[in-house]
Amino acid sequence: MPINSNNTLSVVKIGGNIVDNPDALNSFLTDFHQMKGRKLLIHGGGVMATKMAEQLGIETKKVDGRRITDEDTLRVVTMVYAGWINKNIVASLQKIGCNAIGLSGVDANCIPSKRRNPEPVDFGFVGDPVTRKMNGKLLSTLIENDVIPVFCAITHDEKGSLLNTNADTVASSLAIALSKFYRTTLYYCFEKEGVLRDVNDESSLIPLMNHESFIKLKSQGIIADGMIPKLDNSFKAINEGVSEVVVLHAKNLLEKRGTILNP
Amino acid sequence: MPINSNNTLSVVKIGGNIVDNPDALNSFLTDFHQMKGRKLLIHGGGVMATKMAEQLGIETKKVDGRRITDEDTLRVVTMVYAGWINKNIVASLQKIGCNAIGLSGVDANCIPSKRRNPEPVDFGFVGDPVTRKMNGKLLSTLIENDVIPVFCAITHDEKGSLLNTNADTVASSLAIALSKFYRTTLYYCFEKEGVLRDVNDESSLIPLMNHESFIKLKSQGIIADGMIPKLDNSFKAINEGVSEVVVLHAKNLLEKRGTILNP
Repeated sequence: MPINSNNTLSVVKIGGNIVDNPDALNSFLTDFHQMKGRKLLIHGGGVMATKMAEQLGIETKKVDGRRITDEDTLRVVTMVYAGWINKNIVASLQKIGCNAIGLSGVDANCIPSKRRNPEPVDFGFVGDPVTRKMNGKLLSTLIENDVIPVFCAITHDEKGSLLNTNADTVASSLAIALSKFYRTTLYYCFEKEGVLRDVNDESSLIPLMNHESFIKLKSQGIIADGMIPKLDNSFKAINEGVSEVVVLHAKNLLEKRGTILNP
Repeated sequence: MPINSNNTLSVVKIGGNIVDNPDALNSFLTDFHQMKGRKLLIHGGGVMATKMAEQLGIETKKVDGRRITDEDTLRVVTMVYAGWINKNIVASLQKIGCNAIGLSGVDANCIPSKRRNPEPVDFGFVGDPVTRKMNGKLLSTLIENDVIPVFCAITHDEKGSLLNTNADTVASSLAIALSKFYRTTLYYCFEKEGVLRDVNDESSLIPLMNHESFIKLKSQGIIADGMIPKLDNSFKAINEGVSEVVVLHAKNLLEKRGTILNP
């Protein structure tokens, strides 16, 4: 399928904090349904996974804010992300007339991944998508049949093991793979207005950023912590074919109001 | 798509006892992969769901052998069936080169269901497929693209609620819906050789049965207990368009050796 300007796709990622709040989630799903044009959703769910692990007496271990996924934890995240959260989001979308289909990266081999190197830190069953091996063709077939893919962040190594994967990375990988078929915009929805100069001041939004200004703001320490990997993912996606990335509050999806990232 | 004799489909259901045994499951999945032609898989998983409920301190209540599904139990079965079991089966199939896609009845609204009447027994979040509302078109599109659907037995009421559904019924409903597109054979794989005259004697297999002989064997008390709903489902499927039903041991799938049911 040739890319032309009418052939647009929105790839939307919604974070775990909103997934964990039923009212915020329902409001977001209504907005997502109202978004015009071709689209695809990726959801997180770390908050609920941590609660379920607690109920099962499994200790959650993190290094640098990233979950270490042993066999018991893999079972929990697969149950919570691919089972409970994914199917409930699809049921909620179906209820309002949005023909969603819930998928993980293992399904139809949508997201083949590579287990992360155990050095210097062994994160266990954690992997990163191999973007060049991804095949957007089936997803494009679904989308052209008016079926909306809804992804959780579970992938696989093609050798029989499921892998826990960062949901932001799943979103950027899908956006990259689908940019071969569509002019693709990637939306990172979370609980802040966008990229802020001052993380405690929601009015300090940076409305527009390119790679050069990102490097500068990072060197000045204005962009720090969890925002760095999100923006690294974003500029990697732009570098590999995604037209535009928008970092924004979930409630502002329809107005597309947040930080817009360009090359 | 017109039905012709070359346009065949195998709908295969595998029971929870085999799903719970890693060696038996892997051996079965290898056979399933080697089965020629178009195909689709449905899996149970009750044994693992009961274990997970126990770990979470949730009491499993049954009436006449059927699980009562309260809100906590619905969460458990959705996590176990649609999450852990479904994604692991798909990962195992992908490993051996079978391009599987894991689905539930809520995905793409494949299996709209009706919550069961709370009288005389309130089974909670339990429902039965509404076959006339099922749409086999998307499944047929997947199958024609050499993607193999793998279903768990979770459906939904189209009003936002997931529903726990009998896996045998999910299998027969899918077979009925797809018999509009294909000459369909439904395989019920379990841990017996087929329908037996004497449940304790594996050599007492009844190789062939039609509806008339089923009624007779039932009235004589030769067919009893759990086999009755399975065979009721089977003859209902045959009555609604399925060409043939085979009840057999999972290890005999490739030889198609078991009880063959005809109109």
